[in-house]
Amino acid sequence: MYATRRARLRDRCNASGSASALVTRPANVRYLTGAAPHGAALLLGATEDLLMYAAPAEPPPDTPSGTARPDDALRIHTLSAPGGDPAVAAAECAAAQGADSLAVEEHHLTVSRHRAIGSVAPHLRLADVAGAVEQLRVVKDEEEISCLRVGAEITDQALGELLESILVGRTERHLALELERRLVDHGADGPAFRTSVGTGPHSGRRRHRPTDRRVEEGDFLSVRLGATYHGYRCEIGRTFVIGTSPADWQIALYDLVFASQRAGREALVPGAAYRDVDRAARQVLDSAGYTEGLPGTTGHGVGLEIDEEPQLAPAAMGKLDACVPVTVEPGVHLPGRGGVRIDDTLVVRPEADGGPELLTITTKELLAL
Amino acid sequence: MYATRRARLRDRCNASGSASALVTRPANVRYLTGAAPHGAALLLGATEDLLMYAAPAEPPPDTPSGTARPDDALRIHTLSAPGGDPAVAAAECAAAQGADSLAVEEHHLTVSRHRAIGSVAPHLRLADVAGAVEQLRVVKDEEEISCLRVGAEITDQALGELLESILVGRTERHLALELERRLVDHGADGPAFRTSVGTGPHSGRRRHRPTDRRVEEGDFLSVRLGATYHGYRCEIGRTFVIGTSPADWQIALYDLVFASQRAGREALVPGAAYRDVDRAARQVLDSAGYTEGLPGTTGHGVGLEIDEEPQLAPAAMGKLDACVPVTVEPGVHLPGRGGVRIDDTLVVRPEADGGPELLTITTKELLAL
Repeated sequence: MYATRRARLRDRCNASGSASALVTRPANVRYLTGAAPHGAALLLGATEDLLMYAAPAEPPPDTPSGTARPDDALRIHTLSAPGGDPAVAAAECAAAQGADSLAVEEHHLTVSRHRAIGSVAPHLRLADVAGAVEQLRVVKDEEEISCLRVGAEITDQALGELLESILVGRTERHLALELERRLVDHGADGPAFRTSVGTGPHSGRRRHRPTDRRVEEGDFLSVRLGATYHGYRCEIGRTFVIGTSPADWQIALYDLVFASQRAGREALVPGAAYRDVDRAARQVLDSAGYTEGLPGTTGHGVGLEIDEEPQLAPAAMGKLDACVPVTVEPGVHLPGRGGVRIDDTLVVRPEADGGPELLTITTKELLAL
Repeated sequence: MYATRRARLRDRCNASGSASALVTRPANVRYLTGAAPHGAALLLGATEDLLMYAAPAEPPPDTPSGTARPDDALRIHTLSAPGGDPAVAAAECAAAQGADSLAVEEHHLTVSRHRAIGSVAPHLRLADVAGAVEQLRVVKDEEEISCLRVGAEITDQALGELLESILVGRTERHLALELERRLVDHGADGPAFRTSVGTGPHSGRRRHRPTDRRVEEGDFLSVRLGATYHGYRCEIGRTFVIGTSPADWQIALYDLVFASQRAGREALVPGAAYRDVDRAARQVLDSAGYTEGLPGTTGHGVGLEIDEEPQLAPAAMGKLDACVPVTVEPGVHLPGRGGVRIDDTLVVRPEADGGPELLTITTKELLAL
């Protein structure tokens, strides 16, 4: 599988005139080799592929994702010198193999590292891989999707358990830590991102960092969490109301965001332009007068990173393919009052296969807790 | 305070021929302004200093560290265009202010961002700030040290509470999560780094990632954790033995690592070469035959980052100053059996002031739990 992915990247590089490529961005190295120890660099060489590790201070960890499973076409080498840069060493190997050009990830390599590569391999013409690996990563295979599916199940479980507990009086920080503990309890590698719990006036903020504010009667409570499972990251966001009788403004705002999120979900069909999915969700909010303060995107791809291509945004270029997992996560936050976010992870599927596959299945009814 | 730090950096840049500087590395931006929202860039201009934020999708979080407190000499500007790069915008401002040269952080800027800066400001000569801000950050003021001191107190408390609980049968993952929860309970911003808990054969590994292995009678149990407090990160590492009677090899190994760590601590005097501190700790292990597999460093600076300058390593250049907080953390891991790490955060102080100030005061006796 990894060898196939590397072959696809090699084809792309060859097509743009580079015989060899150097991949350094950790998620990209992992995608192409199954492993991404700190600082590792992958050389796609003319004759062979080489995964270069920094010198380990100790044996590599025995987590499943920590170690590359070498395949026929991948050689693994550990730098012996402490403090060496695997990317520089890999470039030196490319030069030694007689490559005349090397495509590097200019969006990841720092200027200093790029210069160091240039100086150990002065005859190597350095080109730019640009986002080639990120592009390969957009459409997922079924194995990747099943990792996301398991991660979403874990996430739903963790959230479901929290909802059965008493919430009033607990702080945002505690609820967030509790959710993360439950993710791990149910088999996650860890949280996919920093869990966000917002209460009362903090609710509905997309990246709210949990504070010591306690849940109160009458609050909106919004949570955003996700599990990482075998490296794949999903996310869910829900908003609840605390107490038995939501206020009218809370019901109205919830219904609005729900309608926006549904419109976004329903727009997820193969061939739909990214910007049209965004517009479907956005115009529901726009037409209700919530034009100001909307985030730049209403969704994004997920996978080895929690926020990857595509972006569902007004200026995004491109169209959805089948088997692309994305989030749909519109929200409204009213300063001083709070707000609502509803966030799902879904996989784009053809209509004939039943349309978008919802991975995060926790109810989106407005629950009063 | 922040203005004074910026003045010191400006002096350095002027001395090396650049009238203006662009700081992008988050910990450096925070050091110089008190804030580091995602992607922020700081321009030290000829006429004024400018902190450029990316467009916030929502109001900035109200955590104490999230927002710069503007001082007389710092202007704060938020990009209006979504997706814009604050560093590029700041460079454009530098050009507009008439600067002819701009020193940038080549060890942080990617090749792509560097090129984008060059293209919006083609007449600006781009130079390298190199590690100037990191160098300024090495010696801490008393306010910074007091943040570290509070963080260490929190860390000691969290660890102390864990030791009072029943450990046998609990997994590494659970113990790590429990420690992180306690850090937050006691007022930490969060963990300073991923908490490491190693049991039995995993014990003594420096960056062991917690697994589902359960604590067993007779195990070594090693933990490494630290709190972040007001942005400052400290660390402690301790090794315990589970059960009432440690084996002879465990006692011998513990005594050895303890002697090594003490030698390192005692070498912390102003004016000592980094490499000599490292050698003091290392030679105790060397002379007992544990030459192989030793990590590249036996300690490092701490502050806004958990691993910053200086490095206490065989090839490190430079000498300790007073008011430099460092870790001393030698360890030995025997594959298949486990090992011992002992890790403290200390502040270098002159002998006249009582010598090194130990921040992490949990006992280093071999506790049998």
